[in-house]
Amino acid sequence: MAKHTLAKNIDKHLNETITLKGWVYNIRKSGKIWFLIFRDGTEFIQCVILKNEVSPEVFKLKTTLTQESSITVTGVVQEAPSQKFGYEILVKNIEVIQIAEEYPISLKEHGIEFLLDNRHLWLRSKLPNAILKIRHEVSKASRKFFDERDFTLIDSPMFTPNASEGTTTLFKTKYFDQEAYLTQSGQLYSEAAIMGFNKTYCFGPIFRAEKSKTRRHLTEFWMIEPEMAFYDINDNMELAEEYVSYIIQQVLENRRKELEILKRDVTILEKIKPPFPRITYDEAVKILQKNGRNFKWGDDFGAPDETLITKEFDKPIFIHRWPAETKPFYMKRDKNDDKYVLGMDMIAPEGHGEIIGGSQREDDLDLLLERIKKENLSEKMYNWYIDLRRYGSVPHSGFGLGLERTIGWICGIKHIREAIPWPRTIVRLSP
Amino acid sequence: MAKHTLAKNIDKHLNETITLKGWVYNIRKSGKIWFLIFRDGTEFIQCVILKNEVSPEVFKLKTTLTQESSITVTGVVQEAPSQKFGYEILVKNIEVIQIAEEYPISLKEHGIEFLLDNRHLWLRSKLPNAILKIRHEVSKASRKFFDERDFTLIDSPMFTPNASEGTTTLFKTKYFDQEAYLTQSGQLYSEAAIMGFNKTYCFGPIFRAEKSKTRRHLTEFWMIEPEMAFYDINDNMELAEEYVSYIIQQVLENRRKELEILKRDVTILEKIKPPFPRITYDEAVKILQKNGRNFKWGDDFGAPDETLITKEFDKPIFIHRWPAETKPFYMKRDKNDDKYVLGMDMIAPEGHGEIIGGSQREDDLDLLLERIKKENLSEKMYNWYIDLRRYGSVPHSGFGLGLERTIGWICGIKHIREAIPWPRTIVRLSP
Repeated sequence: MAKHTLAKNIDKHLNETITLKGWVYNIRKSGKIWFLIFRDGTEFIQCVILKNEVSPEVFKLKTTLTQESSITVTGVVQEAPSQKFGYEILVKNIEVIQIAEEYPISLKEHGIEFLLDNRHLWLRSKLPNAILKIRHEVSKASRKFFDERDFTLIDSPMFTPNASEGTTTLFKTKYFDQEAYLTQSGQLYSEAAIMGFNKTYCFGPIFRAEKSKTRRHLTEFWMIEPEMAFYDINDNMELAEEYVSYIIQQVLENRRKELEILKRDVTILEKIKPPFPRITYDEAVKILQKNGRNFKWGDDFGAPDETLITKEFDKPIFIHRWPAETKPFYMKRDKNDDKYVLGMDMIAPEGHGEIIGGSQREDDLDLLLERIKKENLSEKMYNWYIDLRRYGSVPHSGFGLGLERTIGWICGIKHIREAIPWPRTIVRLSP
Repeated sequence: MAKHTLAKNIDKHLNETITLKGWVYNIRKSGKIWFLIFRDGTEFIQCVILKNEVSPEVFKLKTTLTQESSITVTGVVQEAPSQKFGYEILVKNIEVIQIAEEYPISLKEHGIEFLLDNRHLWLRSKLPNAILKIRHEVSKASRKFFDERDFTLIDSPMFTPNASEGTTTLFKTKYFDQEAYLTQSGQLYSEAAIMGFNKTYCFGPIFRAEKSKTRRHLTEFWMIEPEMAFYDINDNMELAEEYVSYIIQQVLENRRKELEILKRDVTILEKIKPPFPRITYDEAVKILQKNGRNFKWGDDFGAPDETLITKEFDKPIFIHRWPAETKPFYMKRDKNDDKYVLGMDMIAPEGHGEIIGGSQREDDLDLLLERIKKENLSEKMYNWYIDLRRYGSVPHSGFGLGLERTIGWICGIKHIREAIPWPRTIVRLSP
């Protein structure tokens, strides 16, 4: 097969004859000229077909080419200031690979359930395409950020015998003669890994069998979880704000065109730079009460609470020092008041909710054992984790960032099911 | 907490006083001087403690510090030509963070099952540490390779309603009111994605409930799967050999020290450059028969077959054009002889076996439907996949590389369970 040019690279071939391979996105006809909007997944390009520049057979394709038919286009690259991309193709020849059957997704509006049922085709449309290119950028930027800061990637296991955050939301599978649970977080494993590697991250899928049918929940999503030896809660927050700012800057730098397609207000994103505001749980509760909300100290914040708390800020904020009862056993007590733990959540602005949860971890053997006993967890099951406090325990911290929620915020989309290629929710397992 | 220097960076601080935080790896005593091998996960450093350079309390630590105790070391960086790393620390002060209980893993030899049971601690040892740093490098190089070649990362789903390679080796989970299977390959999803993005890759965990208890099997492993529109089987093989060569070159460039720790013969790796030998399935069978092996045409190659076939080559080889019956329904028939499909496997040298499986995909709607019918697969289940041949079908190809097998080969280790941080096998689900 002859090598061909990707549509995104035609600007390097001005006035040259090139070959493109891809699909028909749209056709506009007008007498002795017709226009074909061509796409190959890397760019959308206008192709101009003039009657006296092509064979009669090619000119007649205007009536036979259907939306999403696959074609090879040969033509000359010319400047086209009126086109968004700045270049178009003066067509010399078109070869048809396949004439597509009537395509179910027209360029008009469709209902979301219909589009999700046709996710395998919907991926070709402009908006999903832009969102998932931004997703790639966020993944890439995340890895780059940690790789450049001496972190080692240590993938956590997917099958686990124990649960890090309760058992009611676990997916269970028969594992030969045993039972295994699908991971809800790599954190406990990362805590072991940092004793061997100093700073680590894991980045993989996470599973939660939550019955929640909200716009912020998926049963399967991706999480990036850095963990650092010798970091306290303040180091942890500093790293988190640097990291989130870095992602945003990388997207602004490399995916501005996609943000434009999504009509995202980039001035909001341009403000995202360290430091982020830090308020305690108690201060957050006061903001709610000041705004007339009936909120009981000790409860967790719901989505409307988070939206209200973040309303006065134009950056993500940290809420730190949480009541111990609201948080898991592994969080370290605040030495100034052991009613609180050194947990910290990062809440995105514009109502996009929590994107990071993290903490300084309990590094004292006796306090950890006490917590495990108090919460009726199995000491035997957690024995390997407890070992980490027996053999050279050190202060350490970490956090987890939810990839889809972060992408949802960056793209300005309401429901995070659009931030993952193949969304899985309580009601959706296909395609 | 005061900022500290990572051990791997002390060469930038010659003659300066610095602070290290980490663990005691080993201690050697000798009268008025003792030596502490310090590790912090980034490097192993010799620290020299002279009686007249430290307080009596610090000097006495030689009798109380145990293996894996956590410490803060302050001292002056000096050149040490006798040390592998080239630098050592003249200690001024040591602060103890925690005295470790008697550490189960001594510097002597232990049995593999004991080490795997203590994987959470074993990660601190030199060999696992080196292997997993190479794993990080291979992951990083893989992403870099595809990112630089206009691929978009499109993560495939973990929960699927259908199976790409038979159902006997699937893990099943209750999914609310339905049943879900854990993914065995992202390929079918990637085939949909390339119609929207041209070239994609996915890179995530893969699950196989194989009852095989061999040194090449894990129930959970990572796979990188590129898929390319408009690539035929030859393009596919070219990309695969370029990719594998690139990984090796990156490891040689950035992880030579780790290869040395593993005593890997790097001259073997240095030879890995394109092109790789390509033989057909029929030629491979002839090699076996020539070597007196009783092998029936139409069978798949076992591990001893692969070792025998690759013996005459010092690079990975491709075996292409397989009997159709040995391969899955989605592989394209060879137009020269439809007894064969355009599949291609890459077999690593030195007995490390298959590391890549791939093919050109069947892009003809009728032939695909015929194959699905013949193999008694559910047309309804695969309807979305069949759609890809209805709406602008194009020639396309792809492959999957098994991460752990590739790492096993690069590191020269026998059993791939050491190539993943938390191995999961038929008999192992913890820690």
